[in-house]
Amino acid sequence: MTEQVFEICPIGVVRSTIKRRGDGPKQGREGAPDAWLEIEDDVADGIEGISPGDSVIVITWLHLARRDELKVHPRGDTAKPLTGVFDTRSPDRPNPIGLHRVVVREIAGRRLRVGPLEAIDGTPIVDIKPALDGCDDA
Amino acid sequence: MTEQVFEICPIGVVRSTIKRRGDGPKQGREGAPDAWLEIEDDVADGIEGISPGDSVIVITWLHLARRDELKVHPRGDTAKPLTGVFDTRSPDRPNPIGLHRVVVREIAGRRLRVGPLEAIDGTPIVDIKPALDGCDDA
Repeated sequence: MTEQVFEICPIGVVRSTIKRRGDGPKQGREGAPDAWLEIEDDVADGIEGISPGDSVIVITWLHLARRDELKVHPRGDTAKPLTGVFDTRSPDRPNPIGLHRVVVREIAGRRLRVGPLEAIDGTPIVDIKPALDGCDDA
Repeated sequence: MTEQVFEICPIGVVRSTIKRRGDGPKQGREGAPDAWLEIEDDVADGIEGISPGDSVIVITWLHLARRDELKVHPRGDTAKPLTGVFDTRSPDRPNPIGLHRVVVREIAGRRLRVGPLEAIDGTPIVDIKPALDGCDDA
């Protein structure tokens, strides 16, 4: 990788009933619960404008991931051939960024209840963005 | 923000005909060109399995962004009220992560031609993920 390094400072943390890696589904749509996003006080002005009902993309840092994996069996299924991590959604990857499209259910001060979210309790939040209209959403 | 800090090590770099911030459209679908993703040699095994025609999400580090902005006028339009950055797609935000849904056009060794991509030449690449089926894609 390049020698350049950038520093991520989490803007908040996920509070979820999912406590351990492996306890939640692999994708939110696969039956994940709602969870709370606790935004840090010094960046809380950044959520102004977000409303219940909005679709947003939560970007997380998958802090329990292995960063030295370049090939994995998709969805942990050893019947599937080893595949480059950039062709999978495995949390194990050089920069373990998680993308989660969720709906905002409720806002209480600087806490947002969103769902469905498969991230585990304590997962650092990197960013939140509005989902764009249409199926070509990033 | 939390005192916890995580380090991103770019997996590659964007090579584009868009050379300066402001020269490209704000979103890829708004007329952006194709661009090359040059993947670093030591993580190039991670792209195995990606094929021309695939829809992928390229995650970038918007290295020219301002990280101290918490409110902006959406799309730089001062007629629009100041809005929290987490309710906008502004590059200016605490952790300037860019999300770009693109189609893979061509693969040449560890270089991928993709498009449309609005990121400027020299933008560091953080991650690549397959787009999920359906409109609820993250």
